Amino acid sequence: MVLETPLVQRAIIVVIVVNAVTIGCETSSFLMERAGGLLHAVDRIALAIFAAEIVARLYAYGRKFFADPWNWFDTVIVVIALVPASGPTSVLRALRILRALRLVSAVPSMRRVVGALLAAVPGMASIIGLLVLMVYIAAVIATKLFGEIVPERFDELPRSLFTLFQIMTGDDWGNVAQEVMKEKPWAWLFFIAYILMSTFVALNLFIAVVVNAMNDTEPSTAEARTQAELAEVKEDLAALHAKLDQLLLRQEREAAVPAGRQPSESANP
Amino acid sequence: MVLETPLVQRAIIVVIVVNAVTIGCETSSFLMERAGGLLHAVDRIALAIFAAEIVARLYAYGRKFFADPWNWFDTVIVVIALVPASGPTSVLRALRILRALRLVSAVPSMRRVVGALLAAVPGMASIIGLLVLMVYIAAVIATKLFGEIVPERFDELPRSLFTLFQIMTGDDWGNVAQEVMKEKPWAWLFFIAYILMSTFVALNLFIAVVVNAMNDTEPSTAEARTQAELAEVKEDLAALHAKLDQLLLRQEREAAVPAGRQPSESANP
Amino acid sequence: MVLETPLVQRAIIVVIVVNAVTIGCETSSFLMERAGGLLHAVDRIALAIFAAEIVARLYAYGRKFFADPWNWFDTVIVVIALVPASGPTSVLRALRILRALRLVSAVPSMRRVVGALLAAVPGMASIIGLLVLMVYIAAVIATKLFGEIVPERFDELPRSLFTLFQIMTGDDWGNVAQEVMKEKPWAWLFFIAYILMSTFVALNLFIAVVVNAMNDTEPSTAEARTQAELAEVKEDLAALHAKLDQLLLRQEREAAVPAGRQPSESANP
Amino acid sequence: MVLETPLVQRAIIVVIVVNAVTIGCETSSFLMERAGGLLHAVDRIALAIFAAEIVARLYAYGRKFFADPWNWFDTVIVVIALVPASGPTSVLRALRILRALRLVSAVPSMRRVVGALLAAVPGMASIIGLLVLMVYIAAVIATKLFGEIVPERFDELPRSLFTLFQIMTGDDWGNVAQEVMKEKPWAWLFFIAYILMSTFVALNLFIAVVVNAMNDTEPSTAEARTQAELAEVKEDLAALHAKLDQLLLRQEREAAVPAGRQPSESANP
Repeated sequence: MVLETPLVQRAIIVVIVVNAVTIGCETSSFLMERAGGLLHAVDRIALAIFAAEIVARLYAYGRKFFADPWNWFDTVIVVIALVPASGPTSVLRALRILRALRLVSAVPSMRRVVGALLAAVPGMASIIGLLVLMVYIAAVIATKLFGEIVPERFDELPRSLFTLFQIMTGDDWGNVAQEVMKEKPWAWLFFIAYILMSTFVALNLFIAVVVNAMNDTEPSTAEARTQAELAEVKEDLAALHAKLDQLLLRQEREAAVPAGRQPSESANP
Repeated sequence: MVLETPLVQRAIIVVIVVNAVTIGCETSSFLMERAGGLLHAVDRIALAIFAAEIVARLYAYGRKFFADPWNWFDTVIVVIALVPASGPTSVLRALRILRALRLVSAVPSMRRVVGALLAAVPGMASIIGLLVLMVYIAAVIATKLFGEIVPERFDELPRSLFTLFQIMTGDDWGNVAQEVMKEKPWAWLFFIAYILMSTFVALNLFIAVVVNAMNDTEPSTAEARTQAELAEVKEDLAALHAKLDQLLLRQEREAAVPAGRQPSESANP
Repeated sequence: MVLETPLVQRAIIVVIVVNAVTIGCETSSFLMERAGGLLHAVDRIALAIFAAEIVARLYAYGRKFFADPWNWFDTVIVVIALVPASGPTSVLRALRILRALRLVSAVPSMRRVVGALLAAVPGMASIIGLLVLMVYIAAVIATKLFGEIVPERFDELPRSLFTLFQIMTGDDWGNVAQEVMKEKPWAWLFFIAYILMSTFVALNLFIAVVVNAMNDTEPSTAEARTQAELAEVKEDLAALHAKLDQLLLRQEREAAVPAGRQPSESANP
Repeated sequence: MVLETPLVQRAIIVVIVVNAVTIGCETSSFLMERAGGLLHAVDRIALAIFAAEIVARLYAYGRKFFADPWNWFDTVIVVIALVPASGPTSVLRALRILRALRLVSAVPSMRRVVGALLAAVPGMASIIGLLVLMVYIAAVIATKLFGEIVPERFDELPRSLFTLFQIMTGDDWGNVAQEVMKEKPWAWLFFIAYILMSTFVALNLFIAVVVNAMNDTEPSTAEARTQAELAEVKEDLAALHAKLDQLLLRQEREAAVPAGRQPSESANP
């Protein structure tokens, strides 16, 4: 199909990159004053090309189009950009840059990387669940115990969740803990237990990912060599079988012939 | 048993999740004003269900109930919630959310994850011991040397332990070190040595966990293939043995028969 | 060649180290007042030696000189030092310390380490690309949404890129997020999504490097033993072949001879 | 020997732990007022026991005593404690807690862990060298370029080294960079390049440790099974050899006997 020739695909990648750069340039008031019209024009042309490409693909593949999740991905991104974003919906306008994500679906090696990343998620579900449960429990406890002491960190459950996520990443936790410890000196117990446990679970989440990745990889050089040698061993064994079969066959013939021939030979004279 | 039908188990999980959410909602004064009665009612019903379930399990399993540590776990959590928590024991009240941990014992895949996490601990005992020893030694030294200079960080051993744990996590250590270095410029030696050593030991703790996890995992695809091929090699060898046995047997017979037959044959004429 | 005798190479390493130390000493105004002349003299002598060594190598190897990228590396470093650095080009003067990098090209084990580090880069290209794309997209969104609220962090695309790189390293992100959240309370969604995604991708970048390193390493002790045993198995099989060949040859001879000899033997009497 | 009976060794461990606790208690002015005499007495008794144990070991092993580095370790620690620490040598007094390190030499599993940690160091020498070189070069450049702008961070080489080590650990680097960038807006280039390179090298240092640890570990379950099966394959092959040898021997006999017997047999009549 025309859409899948390398030339067309490379052209699409160029359009994606150019468009990503122009959307980036739009954030600069300096560039907008001087070349705002040009930037908007490029943006509209790029969007038209993307829309045309998706319509062409939809026409070419028919129903199969919806079978590939990457096509859904591309369609949603283009549709977001087509929504009229005026006034309060400035968030949608900012999301136009998500179009740069089309680079992922357009470059095969990135597609593979993202596919591998997503494939790793289900195997981590239980540990992620455990981590979320831990943060939730810690947040409820922190809200009840520290909510009145340090309200700007723990006054409501959502704020506690944010603070505890921040502590889990190790950012500035010493100060948060010390603020609380001014009133409740035993609070170090809560913070250190929380850090040790969340780090330990996060570490095991990490290990689960590594071990998964290891098992899915190509065999290592050493393993490849082991298997090559095993293949040679099996060839050797096959040759041994062939020789033994020959031996058995001859012995059978001999066992059959001499019994018939020898008598005649010894009967000859 | 009725308690182990999927339906009952799923119902228990739903009760746990609903109860976790209502305890979370109780932290919001906004929700408590409007629906405080409802939240408390749900909480009491959930607690009654948990207590009933444990009694039912206790009745069903008899003595075996105490053999499973998860049953102990569930019982302790429910008992904590039953303790009357009035006035100063607000901590116990806050701990009611620990009931959400029953999710771990109720969902088999989480049970397995937690089991694996706990199983990893004994193998790390020596390195954890070393790390604790290091932090303790560093805390005693820091209290003696820096206690008078930066009393809000190092005045007593417990505070020094807290500060050094904080430094080990890499949080804000530059500021702590610089405060001390204003008075004792050579203190960088202490802090950098401590960071390098504790990081190195913690890194090896981490590696011990990874290596353990690696060894306990299923064999990789490559290893599985190696073993499948080895199995084939062994089958091949067994077939070779069978053929050789046949050869030996025939040779034996031949060696026995001709010696008997040939003379008679050559004696015939 | 004289240049490659261990003595000359060790002398060059000594010159590099001495020169690195003197350039370091030049940053101290205390030492410059007392021994500035000496330091400059050592610096010029070292530079002369480096230049002479490169000319000698160029003379000795001829065209082959340019085939080794390490020679290019050494030449560029010396040329930087020869550029007259006066007045505003103080940056070039500071870059003279890059000469210490000649240590890498002079010590074989460091050369190997750097070679291994660079060899790991191509395999990480896709994930690095994905990470850069993510930071760029997040920076454009942050500039548009938060640029007016916290201009000292997000006013222009370059500053947003810097801030988001800082957040990715986990440095002080809690404060940045809280500044933004004062105006836009939903901003935690952006920051937490960004941290989770960038950490996850960075983690997988890390795993890609580990898995690559694993596959490129020498076989482990266990693998080496497996292969040694496989080699023995193959020798054993070769010996089996030899014995079977002997058996087949004898049987052939017997099959050929008795048919010819026995008659003559039985014909003898 | 008496010194190596489990009872004596356990007693020594108890003395070490008790002594570590009393030295810790000495940091508390509250405890020193009340039980200072007791704490000092325990300390002196413990020290006497350690000294006696070393003398006993020295007497028992003779020259062999000095062959074990752990004996050196114990001796140095006890000698440090014996040095009279009065007035300005308060540092030596603080180092008395290093006696707690005797726990490492007294508990065999800790001895093994520390041995393994130290054994990992030589393999990391090249990468550590590279990392030190990088920090040194960056510190010289930073001192020259930023020394006058942010003197409290970069005025002299030692301070720059400290600041850059802090930046490498990711602590507060954003603030340091922003202070510099107020004067030199292009300084982000220096900081981001430094962070990326030092992280990348440190990451590879880490990987080198992991890969080393992997290779030194016991073979995994899968590898052990592979090797068990290879051993069976080799036994099988040995049995095949035995059978073939039997075949060859019989064939030889037959080839020798019939040629001698048949004539005589056919000559008999």
